[in-house]
Amino acid sequence: MKPVKVGICGLGTVGGGTFNVLKRNAEEISRRAGRSIVVEAIGARRENPDCDTKGTHITADIFEVARNPEIDVVVELIGGYDIALELVLTAIEHGKHVVTANKALIAVHGNEIFEAAQKKNVMVAFEASVAGGIPIIKAIREGLSANKINWLAGIINGTGNFILTEMRDKGRDFADVLAEAQALGYAEADPTFDVEGIDAAHKLTILASLAFGIPLQFEKAYTEGISMITAEDVQYAEELGYRIKHLGISRRTENGVELRVHPTMIPEKALLANVHGVMNAVLVDGDAVGQTMYYGAGAGAEPTASAVVADIVDVVRTLTADRDNRVPHLAFQPGSLSETPVLPVEDVISAYYLRLNVNERPGVLAMVTSILSESGISIDAIVQKETHEDQVPVIILTQEVQEKQMDEAIAKIEALDDVNEPVTRIRVEHL
Amino acid sequence: MKPVKVGICGLGTVGGGTFNVLKRNAEEISRRAGRSIVVEAIGARRENPDCDTKGTHITADIFEVARNPEIDVVVELIGGYDIALELVLTAIEHGKHVVTANKALIAVHGNEIFEAAQKKNVMVAFEASVAGGIPIIKAIREGLSANKINWLAGIINGTGNFILTEMRDKGRDFADVLAEAQALGYAEADPTFDVEGIDAAHKLTILASLAFGIPLQFEKAYTEGISMITAEDVQYAEELGYRIKHLGISRRTENGVELRVHPTMIPEKALLANVHGVMNAVLVDGDAVGQTMYYGAGAGAEPTASAVVADIVDVVRTLTADRDNRVPHLAFQPGSLSETPVLPVEDVISAYYLRLNVNERPGVLAMVTSILSESGISIDAIVQKETHEDQVPVIILTQEVQEKQMDEAIAKIEALDDVNEPVTRIRVEHL
Repeated sequence: MKPVKVGICGLGTVGGGTFNVLKRNAEEISRRAGRSIVVEAIGARRENPDCDTKGTHITADIFEVARNPEIDVVVELIGGYDIALELVLTAIEHGKHVVTANKALIAVHGNEIFEAAQKKNVMVAFEASVAGGIPIIKAIREGLSANKINWLAGIINGTGNFILTEMRDKGRDFADVLAEAQALGYAEADPTFDVEGIDAAHKLTILASLAFGIPLQFEKAYTEGISMITAEDVQYAEELGYRIKHLGISRRTENGVELRVHPTMIPEKALLANVHGVMNAVLVDGDAVGQTMYYGAGAGAEPTASAVVADIVDVVRTLTADRDNRVPHLAFQPGSLSETPVLPVEDVISAYYLRLNVNERPGVLAMVTSILSESGISIDAIVQKETHEDQVPVIILTQEVQEKQMDEAIAKIEALDDVNEPVTRIRVEHL
Repeated sequence: MKPVKVGICGLGTVGGGTFNVLKRNAEEISRRAGRSIVVEAIGARRENPDCDTKGTHITADIFEVARNPEIDVVVELIGGYDIALELVLTAIEHGKHVVTANKALIAVHGNEIFEAAQKKNVMVAFEASVAGGIPIIKAIREGLSANKINWLAGIINGTGNFILTEMRDKGRDFADVLAEAQALGYAEADPTFDVEGIDAAHKLTILASLAFGIPLQFEKAYTEGISMITAEDVQYAEELGYRIKHLGISRRTENGVELRVHPTMIPEKALLANVHGVMNAVLVDGDAVGQTMYYGAGAGAEPTASAVVADIVDVVRTLTADRDNRVPHLAFQPGSLSETPVLPVEDVISAYYLRLNVNERPGVLAMVTSILSESGISIDAIVQKETHEDQVPVIILTQEVQEKQMDEAIAKIEALDDVNEPVTRIRVEHL
């Protein structure tokens, strides 16, 4: 079957990431999608130094891509409102499926775009428009479709969360952290969209429509940023057992749907209170499922590309498969499963916690540590606990070692006269 | 369009939950699915006291349901291996689509079932088989399809996590907590599947196949339970900055795929270390997206039903929509959007944090609190901070109040001679 041909418009951060992910993971992606995906053309005014685009047609005219008769899917990654809208409508008009990461476009012009897409029977996908790589749109639109959703609340702007996290961790002021975020590239030169909550309101508008089945109404969202939060507020909140997070909240009430973005004090033990730095998370409360949460990187080249490419795969699967086999049972096409063996546990590498009960006699610890050393196992920490009925619990944390080496060492340790019980071992992982 | 007819086999916890969710949320679900969903028949040996099944045909012969020519989708919720397998294969043979929550069945007989389904061109969906209501299968199979997945690790057995959480929180012993879990209904009378890790290994087997594209190989999973973990281990781990969690871990290595379930010590700050009680969570590391996490209830009647019904909706959408409109853009069918208005922010109800800078003069606090009281705003806490250049920061936490009442109160407070700056307000939510 011939490849699906994609045109990427915009080769900035996300466009570059999308190009690179499609290229690097081409083999795995085609095993999942059931068909190869090829970037047929790129519409961009300049090259991206992170991309090796040799062999791919590049044009400065993005509309040439949208009209290119060879192209099946147009990926809009130029951002902004007007030209993006014109581009997407042109692509739809020419019968292309569209994938976009543009939250502003969807929040403000989505209703119009979806109507046009339905008339022309093409797909428009926008997973990357909210919370970057977290598949939150799919979760709400499909995964939670059984539920009457009560409310959702999310940290959906990474820049704002980075600033608030730094203010809390280091007692710094807003302006100070913002300047650093700009230097690090986390915040735009004009940070208004991020710090005044507009970006979050775009995303919340989209999530609320998915959750409550209302048309997109960005103009009705209440939007308040974080620029008025002081280091003192952060500290006082902390003293009261709270943290300040910039949240988008949408809740179903008797009189209407709340749609609001603002700094919010939440209990320090709340899951959302523990989402730090540039990470995003969305908490959704449904009447059947209760609370579920979705966490991950909300921005950045490849996390956002992850969602863009997932949308492309969705489109390709729909174009390619029989109706009843759109998504393969095991994610990969049945004929494309891998022969990679399952690793026997003896070959697994892991660090270990060991607990031994030894008799209180000189020299026992020396014997144990020399067995470990002879087996090539390095010790990270060793702690002798209080003696209890002439026995001493000894705790050992090891560095990483292959399980079979550990099996041998433990057998030797258990054979020692002064080691009294089977050794307890618990694997240690630094996830 | 006539309704899609569903047959539910098994009316225990999950079967009852599925019946109730389909009934209670029928209107919203059909607006999402594009078509009504009707329970045509139930196969169950006894009634479920939580379900009002009046008017629904109930038969003790589940195979009657699987063969019923009226039925489009057979929902297998009887659990176990052999009869469930026969039931599912019978349903497939009769051209029914199948939805199941049965992790044991899929982990052990999935390869065979999927092959049969493809031959008959029917769908087999099993989102509920892993992590209950969390749409983790959809996330990995579709949401992360751009990624080469490096590893995944999950708390995928609620009973085990409940026991370990209790052991840590209360310093209790394994046997003691297990007995309580059984009394509470969190653990089965025969707890082997849960506490020896078999249930988690079934789920991990499924996740690993989705992540790495390998056939289901439950028999190769390394499985170790939590029954050997002592209260001392939990405490020693804590002292070293770790927590013990029962994890399923699958990782791609050069020599093969790790597939292992065992107690694991992880740093106390790790996200998974902070998933408590019966909750589940799965952390997935992909090469493009980085780490994403999915959190929610992994068991229980309605959380599991949430996933079962989402699968039914997926099937119904596929049967009903045009190819390019399978999932509506805004989750609900375009003609079924709701007119529910967006609530003006003045009508939103929320608790508040207020920060005032007042002159150090007797009587100021009294004036402020009486304004709040006259506006019908109750105070939860009031804290006066240290004087700074003759000004005193005052922090007030209020109970819930409508925003417009708070607007009025703040206007009056700001009008006081001894209140010096605009009042800072931050909304407080107990998420």
